[in-house]
Amino acid sequence: MKKLYFITGNMGKLAEIQERVKTLDIKVIQKDLGYPEIQVENLEDVAEYGVKHIQKQFNEPFILEDAGLFIDDLDGFPGVYSKYVFYTIGLKGILKLMENTTKRSALFRSVYAYAEPNSKPILFVGECKGTITIKERGTGGFGYDPIFVPEGESKTFAEMSREEKNRYSHRGKAVDELLDFLKK
Amino acid sequence: MKKLYFITGNMGKLAEIQERVKTLDIKVIQKDLGYPEIQVENLEDVAEYGVKHIQKQFNEPFILEDAGLFIDDLDGFPGVYSKYVFYTIGLKGILKLMENTTKRSALFRSVYAYAEPNSKPILFVGECKGTITIKERGTGGFGYDPIFVPEGESKTFAEMSREEKNRYSHRGKAVDELLDFLKK
Repeated sequence: MKKLYFITGNMGKLAEIQERVKTLDIKVIQKDLGYPEIQVENLEDVAEYGVKHIQKQFNEPFILEDAGLFIDDLDGFPGVYSKYVFYTIGLKGILKLMENTTKRSALFRSVYAYAEPNSKPILFVGECKGTITIKERGTGGFGYDPIFVPEGESKTFAEMSREEKNRYSHRGKAVDELLDFLKK
Repeated sequence: MKKLYFITGNMGKLAEIQERVKTLDIKVIQKDLGYPEIQVENLEDVAEYGVKHIQKQFNEPFILEDAGLFIDDLDGFPGVYSKYVFYTIGLKGILKLMENTTKRSALFRSVYAYAEPNSKPILFVGECKGTITIKERGTGGFGYDPIFVPEGESKTFAEMSREEKNRYSHRGKAVDELLDFLKK
């Protein structure tokens, strides 16, 4: 009998294929090794993956940045997939998902990576706590700015000048760290 | 003046950091190389990435499978991120996003990869067209099964027996192809 390992943690998928091979000379054996599915939990991994990719084709010092909005009521959604979610369900989708909740806390995170050729990147992390608005407000900034109010403020990022936003924002804080490093 | 390349396609991020380095001896230059952000458009890439990862640590022939639900009204959301979305906003979230739409068509896709040591994987793709229900129905299956009705049927996947579901499903079709190949 031919052995075939099925790399999965999903018992439903395993049962489905075992049902199918019953009459065949094949034995499907579960092997739950786990693999990343090109999907990761944190922005640091996303940034490091990006750095490796760029270093293969570009030979100068560079920076790149990854950011995400982690909403408590949605179990961290959209998180590392913020960009993808923005271009599919968008701000309208996020507000709809939160229509009936009063738990509106969220965390904006930014990770800047600075990388020199053939070296591991140095990461600079900035965070900004805040709340998700009931509706979109303001036209400045980009991405989730119209629905995010930083802690201690009443305006959304999209209602602030760029300078004002930089003072508060996750990305502003990450840039602070990056610039401190570059000045040295 | 020190040159620093910023790998980004986002003009907002570029403007933010340029604002910040104005007074410093650093020139930030945009370089829009594009990198995958560990985020991909299609299941084939997800499966191939998984295979490469497993082959580094496992030396037997194996299979793995990646599936996703692509909802037309949500621009393909949750797509390749179906698993992540399932564990954050869940079925409740999907139904809420679709509360007021009559455009309920969706496509379930499954990609099985069969891989031998040191070889490129062979991919087997199955698809199943269908519609998203108004509310959850049934307790069988897993994942999005309670809200998906395949074309030409009235029951959701979660209301079917495993055998019945296998006959229709994206994964059932991909397994058909895989088994045809393995029999040869």
